[in-house]
Amino acid sequence: MLAGVQLIGYSTSGLGQVTFTGHNPATGAALAPSFRQATEAEIDQAAQLAHQAFAEYRRWTGPQKAAFLEQIAEEILALEPLIATAQAETALPEARLVGERGRTVGQLRLFAQWVRQGHWVGARIDRALPQRQPLPRPDLRQMLVPLGPVAVFGASNFPLAFSVAGGDTASALAAGCPVLFKAHPAHPATCQLVGQAIVAAAQKLGPPEGVFSLLHGPAPAVGAALVQHPLVKAVGFTGSFAGGKALYDLAARRPEPIPVFAEMGSTNPVFLLPGALRERGEAIAKGLAASVTLGVGQFCTNPGVFVTANGPERSPFLAHLAQALAQTPGGIMLTEGIRQAYGQGLARLQTDGATPLAQGSQEPATRQVAAQLWQTSAQAVAQHPHLLEEVFGPVSVHVATESRDELLALARQLTGHLTATVHGTEADLAQYTDLLDVLATKAGRLIINGFPTGVEVSHAMVHGGPYPATTDSRSTSVGTAAIARFARPLCYQDFPNHLLPNELKDENPLKIWRLEEGEWINYKMT
Amino acid sequence: MLAGVQLIGYSTSGLGQVTFTGHNPATGAALAPSFRQATEAEIDQAAQLAHQAFAEYRRWTGPQKAAFLEQIAEEILALEPLIATAQAETALPEARLVGERGRTVGQLRLFAQWVRQGHWVGARIDRALPQRQPLPRPDLRQMLVPLGPVAVFGASNFPLAFSVAGGDTASALAAGCPVLFKAHPAHPATCQLVGQAIVAAAQKLGPPEGVFSLLHGPAPAVGAALVQHPLVKAVGFTGSFAGGKALYDLAARRPEPIPVFAEMGSTNPVFLLPGALRERGEAIAKGLAASVTLGVGQFCTNPGVFVTANGPERSPFLAHLAQALAQTPGGIMLTEGIRQAYGQGLARLQTDGATPLAQGSQEPATRQVAAQLWQTSAQAVAQHPHLLEEVFGPVSVHVATESRDELLALARQLTGHLTATVHGTEADLAQYTDLLDVLATKAGRLIINGFPTGVEVSHAMVHGGPYPATTDSRSTSVGTAAIARFARPLCYQDFPNHLLPNELKDENPLKIWRLEEGEWINYKMT
Repeated sequence: MLAGVQLIGYSTSGLGQVTFTGHNPATGAALAPSFRQATEAEIDQAAQLAHQAFAEYRRWTGPQKAAFLEQIAEEILALEPLIATAQAETALPEARLVGERGRTVGQLRLFAQWVRQGHWVGARIDRALPQRQPLPRPDLRQMLVPLGPVAVFGASNFPLAFSVAGGDTASALAAGCPVLFKAHPAHPATCQLVGQAIVAAAQKLGPPEGVFSLLHGPAPAVGAALVQHPLVKAVGFTGSFAGGKALYDLAARRPEPIPVFAEMGSTNPVFLLPGALRERGEAIAKGLAASVTLGVGQFCTNPGVFVTANGPERSPFLAHLAQALAQTPGGIMLTEGIRQAYGQGLARLQTDGATPLAQGSQEPATRQVAAQLWQTSAQAVAQHPHLLEEVFGPVSVHVATESRDELLALARQLTGHLTATVHGTEADLAQYTDLLDVLATKAGRLIINGFPTGVEVSHAMVHGGPYPATTDSRSTSVGTAAIARFARPLCYQDFPNHLLPNELKDENPLKIWRLEEGEWINYKMT
Repeated sequence: MLAGVQLIGYSTSGLGQVTFTGHNPATGAALAPSFRQATEAEIDQAAQLAHQAFAEYRRWTGPQKAAFLEQIAEEILALEPLIATAQAETALPEARLVGERGRTVGQLRLFAQWVRQGHWVGARIDRALPQRQPLPRPDLRQMLVPLGPVAVFGASNFPLAFSVAGGDTASALAAGCPVLFKAHPAHPATCQLVGQAIVAAAQKLGPPEGVFSLLHGPAPAVGAALVQHPLVKAVGFTGSFAGGKALYDLAARRPEPIPVFAEMGSTNPVFLLPGALRERGEAIAKGLAASVTLGVGQFCTNPGVFVTANGPERSPFLAHLAQALAQTPGGIMLTEGIRQAYGQGLARLQTDGATPLAQGSQEPATRQVAAQLWQTSAQAVAQHPHLLEEVFGPVSVHVATESRDELLALARQLTGHLTATVHGTEADLAQYTDLLDVLATKAGRLIINGFPTGVEVSHAMVHGGPYPATTDSRSTSVGTAAIARFARPLCYQDFPNHLLPNELKDENPLKIWRLEEGEWINYKMT
């Protein structure tokens, strides 16, 4: 039976008197076991241990860190009750959770592979020029080094892939940073199981104790204490705007400000151009309805707004879309709080003058919610910009524009988003290059003739974007580029070769790509 | 005759009623002309113009931006009264200013070369896998794109290389970001001349008007208005901790927070190990004295603290150092305010219990200041950590430690610095690897057997470091890596080849290095 306590290094600790439980979202019933909220002393103990661990873990080699990440993947796959536990806490279907576990494990393995290769440090070498006039140039070598202990806050909507062993933890550990994970109060047992898997992997592979700790607590004070702890050097967060912004503000006001990488979701606007709707309106309608309702609409990249131009193709498209949506069954949301916020968000749409366009089904006398489509005009959006803000759940707002200028003005009015999507024929796209130009300043990922849900874990992915989608547009929280969030460049000047890190030694023992005098040098040539 | 007005795009503007002048630091005399402080309306006009310019300038190609940067270099070299003007405003010697102009021009040309090559965008390509199970992979391509208009604040101590056309401006323009430059009130005429050179280059090369504007004003309100303007998307700053931190706080509290890259200086500790002092104590003493007093000690990388271990080699070394310093003539500091702050800093050393060790000379009845050496113990530093804080000017504080443990404890007590230096023989370094490990967590650049002054402009340089040396340790303000501060990754999903930026097209028309499926691909092979 799971014990509801903190995991601090290789110990457990349950000093706190405040307790809480997860809940079954379908019934509202409290789930066993009861969890103790972390105390300030426990948070401090975990942070001290992480700080001590950093002194050694920062010098772990790529292959050492890779083996650790791969062992975490193995331990997760071996967790017997994981899927059932996550199902009970989140109401997500088994197949989805099995898939998400696969994504989590694949992500750990990709980061392992990437740090084993070692290219990620971005080594740069400018060799000494002792004869240069008027002054000699010293030998200068640069590479990325880890920042220090990272506090990570997981998301409610991906209890595995964006949680305890998710992308933030994987990229921080890959960079060489210890992780202090704040368990999500909506799935504490799932967090505990995965936390135990990480501890088990650590005990087998031998990183210094404290490289990982797990702390529980629904109270904002627990997260605040973590972010404000002087030994914490960066924060990773996935969740609501309110939550992410609060942590950003706390971190910026510390005596020593630290970076916060908060991915706070967005409305992910989709622009549907006339030719595309004429040629394949029905297929787009089906694809959009599926994207809006996927996982009961609980994706950061859910398309919460779609925009059409005026034309005869609009009505038949909307009819197809309404039909597709009407066939969508109801779903249970992740928590009662999220379900209530969804209702409030729909009420806000009404207040702001949007009108209902279509609705999915919903089992009576259950906690299910129905998918929804709403409709508004560009004029209304200009007056009520709130209409473009995220309502977390299976809803999308149709903005009907009356002219090309109105459509472009709407695009210019957008704030920052994770994604922006355009459906168009070749002719449409040629006619709307200015739309693409505007959207390129608004989003972290631009999609043509696809849908934003589905975030590939790869080298080229960007899951980020201008504020308020994130608090740092210069980063991604998915894909191998995510490691750079938790690292900084360090320059070694005139070091004897044997004192340099292996990444920077003359003989390039790791055989990594390095920028030498401004040219990437292929280790295979040397 | 120079007009003391704002340069807003291709126009000049002098709407403000508040005026100010530069001053000759050697005499205190006001210098002509008088400058008008920018009004809020002028700041807004410049920001609006920059925003409009960004829509086009962000799409300028590498060769276009390179030609613009190179033309700026040409225009600066052609500025007839530049050196004399800067001399009058800063009291820096002619040879130093000529050298600094060379550095400025060289820096512009290096950034030009780097964006012409185009590697800087860090292109990453993961091609579509339409047959992949269970889901196909879309085509994903990532590259860096510019953030938008950047507000830049220059430093007092480098009126050319860290000012109007300095590293921040060069890297922002190289990234594709318009620059709103806040002229330094200590050298407004120098700023005006260089600003005119940039405008002249722009008029010849044709970037959109507003890609550069220059705004004057000693009042904090001018800088605050720039940083708080909603169309400004990032800030570059070099100067004092108080100034940089104030801008950071303003930026973090905006409705849309923006990144601030403030390089705020540091004490740049130097550790002198016993063997090195035995073998070449006199040479180290001469080198250290020269580094402490270079440019009247007005360098961000000035070694403000040096640490010795207990041993018989210490006394003779200190005697050599005192002798070298005593031979150093006095110097005129950049401004009267800086001169007064230097005096206050020395008084603070006394208050905190440090004692004078040696002093340079000083012409009586002038505004010259004398170089100084002070001495304290590790114990005193533990009680008065202020002793490790920067006193801007030609002074260094000797911390005498009594044991290896005390020396290491002192290193652990350090906050973030731009640089940390160790002088040691092979045997010293082997015995003090733990010192190097600690310093690697404290600085942006580690130097062995050299001195921190002298910041090479190259690919591998890091001029940055953990807080409080900067507000963002994940960046450098010198060297080609500085461009990344003003850019963010953008991912293109399933774009038709002809709509992709050239950096990401299948045929790699720019012949840049790209990370394809996790391997850097050599364009020369393709």
